[in-house]
Amino acid sequence: MSLLNRKPVVGIIMGSDSDLKVMQDAAVVLEEFDIAFELTVVSAHRTPLRMVEYAQQAAGRGLKVIIAGAGGAAHLPGMVAAVTTLPVIGVPVKSSNSIDGWDSILSILQMPNGVPVATVALNAAKNAGLLAAQIVGSFDEHVSKKMQDYKTAMNDAVLEKAGKLANDWPNAFDGSK
Amino acid sequence: MSLLNRKPVVGIIMGSDSDLKVMQDAAVVLEEFDIAFELTVVSAHRTPLRMVEYAQQAAGRGLKVIIAGAGGAAHLPGMVAAVTTLPVIGVPVKSSNSIDGWDSILSILQMPNGVPVATVALNAAKNAGLLAAQIVGSFDEHVSKKMQDYKTAMNDAVLEKAGKLANDWPNAFDGSK
Amino acid sequence: MSLLNRKPVVGIIMGSDSDLKVMQDAAVVLEEFDIAFELTVVSAHRTPLRMVEYAQQAAGRGLKVIIAGAGGAAHLPGMVAAVTTLPVIGVPVKSSNSIDGWDSILSILQMPNGVPVATVALNAAKNAGLLAAQIVGSFDEHVSKKMQDYKTAMNDAVLEKAGKLANDWPNAFDGSK
Amino acid sequence: MSLLNRKPVVGIIMGSDSDLKVMQDAAVVLEEFDIAFELTVVSAHRTPLRMVEYAQQAAGRGLKVIIAGAGGAAHLPGMVAAVTTLPVIGVPVKSSNSIDGWDSILSILQMPNGVPVATVALNAAKNAGLLAAQIVGSFDEHVSKKMQDYKTAMNDAVLEKAGKLANDWPNAFDGSK
Amino acid sequence: MSLLNRKPVVGIIMGSDSDLKVMQDAAVVLEEFDIAFELTVVSAHRTPLRMVEYAQQAAGRGLKVIIAGAGGAAHLPGMVAAVTTLPVIGVPVKSSNSIDGWDSILSILQMPNGVPVATVALNAAKNAGLLAAQIVGSFDEHVSKKMQDYKTAMNDAVLEKAGKLANDWPNAFDGSK
Amino acid sequence: MSLLNRKPVVGIIMGSDSDLKVMQDAAVVLEEFDIAFELTVVSAHRTPLRMVEYAQQAAGRGLKVIIAGAGGAAHLPGMVAAVTTLPVIGVPVKSSNSIDGWDSILSILQMPNGVPVATVALNAAKNAGLLAAQIVGSFDEHVSKKMQDYKTAMNDAVLEKAGKLANDWPNAFDGSK
Amino acid sequence: MSLLNRKPVVGIIMGSDSDLKVMQDAAVVLEEFDIAFELTVVSAHRTPLRMVEYAQQAAGRGLKVIIAGAGGAAHLPGMVAAVTTLPVIGVPVKSSNSIDGWDSILSILQMPNGVPVATVALNAAKNAGLLAAQIVGSFDEHVSKKMQDYKTAMNDAVLEKAGKLANDWPNAFDGSK
Amino acid sequence: MSLLNRKPVVGIIMGSDSDLKVMQDAAVVLEEFDIAFELTVVSAHRTPLRMVEYAQQAAGRGLKVIIAGAGGAAHLPGMVAAVTTLPVIGVPVKSSNSIDGWDSILSILQMPNGVPVATVALNAAKNAGLLAAQIVGSFDEHVSKKMQDYKTAMNDAVLEKAGKLANDWPNAFDGSK
Repeated sequence: MSLLNRKPVVGIIMGSDSDLKVMQDAAVVLEEFDIAFELTVVSAHRTPLRMVEYAQQAAGRGLKVIIAGAGGAAHLPGMVAAVTTLPVIGVPVKSSNSIDGWDSILSILQMPNGVPVATVALNAAKNAGLLAAQIVGSFDEHVSKKMQDYKTAMNDAVLEKAGKLANDWPNAFDGSK
Repeated sequence: MSLLNRKPVVGIIMGSDSDLKVMQDAAVVLEEFDIAFELTVVSAHRTPLRMVEYAQQAAGRGLKVIIAGAGGAAHLPGMVAAVTTLPVIGVPVKSSNSIDGWDSILSILQMPNGVPVATVALNAAKNAGLLAAQIVGSFDEHVSKKMQDYKTAMNDAVLEKAGKLANDWPNAFDGSK
Repeated sequence: MSLLNRKPVVGIIMGSDSDLKVMQDAAVVLEEFDIAFELTVVSAHRTPLRMVEYAQQAAGRGLKVIIAGAGGAAHLPGMVAAVTTLPVIGVPVKSSNSIDGWDSILSILQMPNGVPVATVALNAAKNAGLLAAQIVGSFDEHVSKKMQDYKTAMNDAVLEKAGKLANDWPNAFDGSK
Repeated sequence: MSLLNRKPVVGIIMGSDSDLKVMQDAAVVLEEFDIAFELTVVSAHRTPLRMVEYAQQAAGRGLKVIIAGAGGAAHLPGMVAAVTTLPVIGVPVKSSNSIDGWDSILSILQMPNGVPVATVALNAAKNAGLLAAQIVGSFDEHVSKKMQDYKTAMNDAVLEKAGKLANDWPNAFDGSK
Repeated sequence: MSLLNRKPVVGIIMGSDSDLKVMQDAAVVLEEFDIAFELTVVSAHRTPLRMVEYAQQAAGRGLKVIIAGAGGAAHLPGMVAAVTTLPVIGVPVKSSNSIDGWDSILSILQMPNGVPVATVALNAAKNAGLLAAQIVGSFDEHVSKKMQDYKTAMNDAVLEKAGKLANDWPNAFDGSK
Repeated sequence: MSLLNRKPVVGIIMGSDSDLKVMQDAAVVLEEFDIAFELTVVSAHRTPLRMVEYAQQAAGRGLKVIIAGAGGAAHLPGMVAAVTTLPVIGVPVKSSNSIDGWDSILSILQMPNGVPVATVALNAAKNAGLLAAQIVGSFDEHVSKKMQDYKTAMNDAVLEKAGKLANDWPNAFDGSK
Repeated sequence: MSLLNRKPVVGIIMGSDSDLKVMQDAAVVLEEFDIAFELTVVSAHRTPLRMVEYAQQAAGRGLKVIIAGAGGAAHLPGMVAAVTTLPVIGVPVKSSNSIDGWDSILSILQMPNGVPVATVALNAAKNAGLLAAQIVGSFDEHVSKKMQDYKTAMNDAVLEKAGKLANDWPNAFDGSK
Repeated sequence: MSLLNRKPVVGIIMGSDSDLKVMQDAAVVLEEFDIAFELTVVSAHRTPLRMVEYAQQAAGRGLKVIIAGAGGAAHLPGMVAAVTTLPVIGVPVKSSNSIDGWDSILSILQMPNGVPVATVALNAAKNAGLLAAQIVGSFDEHVSKKMQDYKTAMNDAVLEKAGKLANDWPNAFDGSK
């Protein structure tokens, strides 16, 4: 069954369509893990009622995880987390109005007790996708198996690079094997 | 007519009653300027719908300015500003979960284009009250006159302190007058 | 009546003409809201007496709000606020001599008790113009109505973008409507 | 069946027993949500092989989520995430050797692509517990229902505090209801 | 001739009498170097016209150097420097409203081209006094000689401490002499 | 008499010739004020003994002020100040190895009690030259007069720019004159 | 042979005797590893010539490593490294005049190319001692063996603490063994 | 005997081959000092077991020093130091995912007591190589002699540059010699 036709379990939202070039990395990862998702723009500051509605309906519509990205005074992840009971992953975006990303990070990370946001690194939408996959994978052996494969592939890619470097540089560690 | 019975023109809200010890300074200033106000707790994260309702009704209930204080990932001022058309003054509170106030400041100050928050200094609820009085005073001569008196009193208080210091330290500047 | 011929209610000043490319955004907003303004260069450090004179005369000349932008050790907004009783909106400009904007922000935001400056985000002259319009709008129904329209337009622009994104990405939220 | 005798689904680990006073908040939350957990000390720097072993066995032993707290150059959450396929929640601890928590935050949050850590606020072990509960709750209706009750209780507690404040301060918002 | 009766060559000013406990260190140093000074309170924000007057008259009244201390958004040193042609030494004070001193430092140090302030370390009023003495000493052999003695005394004090430490700790460096 | 043939009263030194593009602004200012200077490279870290010798001989060779610029862990200004009795002006240079200038600023500014450095803004060699001229001018009426002219010229340049802006923007302040 | 009578191989120096309470941790570690050391006060700013002499003689006197601690604008480690060919370990001390340690760290860490300083964590004199022991141990099997024992002891101490925690908290990981 | 065929005494490792452009500076220095080294990629996060193995075998394979570079949440240097008894030099790399290098620096520098990392400046792989050479040189007169020559050459290069500058700028210091 096509990914597009299945009911999404991860919702990817962002404060502005200018965040798409960062946030689409989350979507690419979810596609790779064959996890159905949806993606749209929800602005805490320009569409506050759309944001409330999105958060209120998320669990009922079958979502398991929400990924929310925003920059500057980034209120979207925290405000969505205030309304929904689902785990919310926050992606601090280094948007054009951000001060080197510090505002984005702190306004997503430093949530008060009672309303957590699972914050990932600055612009790390790819990691947000992986974290969503890990959450789904904790309760889905198929996804968990893919995650193990993903880790193995990362490991192998490093070994391959190490092999290539060994052509140009002395490498007694791998060389002795 | 008592201040308490008049229709408030300034609304003072805060994310937690633990912010009251900081935020009441705004109330004290407004009393001093004889400006009717209201004060309550509205949490962006624990009572998101109360927050939306507060912001939606504010202008209709006759408020002219909203003062909102919060700490950490402080979303209250910005989210209220997202909903209301009134000017919103944000007070970054150095709450117990804040990192030296940087999170409070940045998540209030760094609002995106379209939704300003008039941010004052860390914990400066007194200045928030004065700024509200200046805004009211721009359109109310009585308050404007009080603001001029307030400034004169500040000036005189410095002169008095300078006079006292002159007892202990050489002061050729004032001494020559 | 042309905006240029009406008596200005908002004064826009900046420390250097090199700040104009940032600060003119405030002017553009005020034009959009049909609010009469004036704009000029007033340097706290190079023309300190001009600055004092500007601040002293502002209320008497009919201004209701002053917008002041400056970068680096940015003293203009705070010093103007020290002299006038009007509300002063400060725009921290990320000027060429600024350290990523931190100096501009802190020297405008962290005013002592007694002399507030309504600080907006780094380079956010557009938000300074909107905040001035909100202040005027609190006491002018015509402007207040325009502000409501402005917010509606922002909301609609997000919905339109969400609609466009839905062509390329799965969107069960809006799709189900 | 007692919580202690059930197979844990959440593992709470920390770099030092001096982190216990912060990290036990996560345990308290999980008890509240009736989610079986385990808690021990695993130091990335002093017991690196124990750490690897812990991470390697976690999924196989039935854990669904790992909560890891550490301070200073805090490598525990990221290193555990490097080895396991489970979602790892990182708690930056403001330990005695930390520079206001910045080192703890950045060395947990800023993970490279491929290995996410779900970072919560500084010292926010309580939120780590809640996030773990939300993750479990996404796939367990009983826990999800408790999370909804938890949110309702937070909302009600604010309303109660607002009611108490109304005795001392004017409150036209709630008063008009 | 008593120091108090001589015409001051250094003016020490501060934004608030609460800065006196820091700023008096400058006075103590100047007394030590037998340099006549004056000391008073001049607030940029509460007494802006007094500040302008102070700066305008300083050179004419015979001052050679001005030491100005302030905290938070500290405009006093820079604004005095804007008006006078004298060298101005700025002391960033870590006042109660300052964010760890960063605001004080940046708003004094980061002056634009054309208007320098000779900034010393946070709270380093003692160094401000020494710097004023060095400036005077560059053109006054008596003071210059005292400065050389001061440096010799600092050197000797370290040697004495090294000697004492040698009682408790091995010290082959000095021991071999 | 040519500036080059007169005995220098200001010494300009820098840690690397790569700092020349910043530091030559100090030289240009001194030429403008007709103050004799010398300029060379003295590295605290690569030529420590040359640095000690330079500082030891400075006063004896007739220098009145030393301007020292360096970047990163910038020890040159402070170390020269440790050896000489002359006032030392420090210019934090944002060199290629500096972290946005913070290391340069802090390692020059934060000198311990006893050894001040008159620190100017990041890269502000021009202000270092002006500060040196102010110091010389405090004891030289010719230079002091030039400094007054310099300030007047800065003021006039702003007025001229304000005049030009008035062609494009409404300016009721200057227009009413 | 007593440690005190042996020729020292590690030199511990600090900018002020007030740093002793931090720096003595390095001495304690070296005693533990039976490595002969010397300890004294050498101030870069108050005794610059003593510092040069210390650094010039260090290698010739048989030292293999120098540990240097200082706070604020901390020039001692870098300046000693400029003169000696020995490896220099720098300890940033959070002294009373330091801004949360940032100045100490940056002015020690950010050395230019050509003159490295092996910087350890803020106040981490204990780690400086361990690093010196590791350097000595790389060429001394006796010390290297002790370092291995030290690591084993650290590992065992964690296991012991984990064992104690298991009395109060569920611990399925160790419990299953 | 060729450097490549000798048993390496320094191991250079990095978290990603994208760090090679920074890290190869360490290799170039070691070649210059005729010190045998090896160089490869070892990722803490993508190849955690390779990292453990590398660190476990390092001393046994004859390495005396390990240089480890990484960016962002940089765990490689600290984790290698946790496993080996050798001195580990950490190079904070300003990688593409780093926030101006702060995360790289803090997650390498701020190691807990017991496990030091000898941290050098941001991107300062050249200094890491020099530090390794100094460590080797402390126990190898041949290398120590080369280090002295290296310092002399740095000193001479500055003198040569000073000589060239003297053509364009007045230089009474060197000119008088």
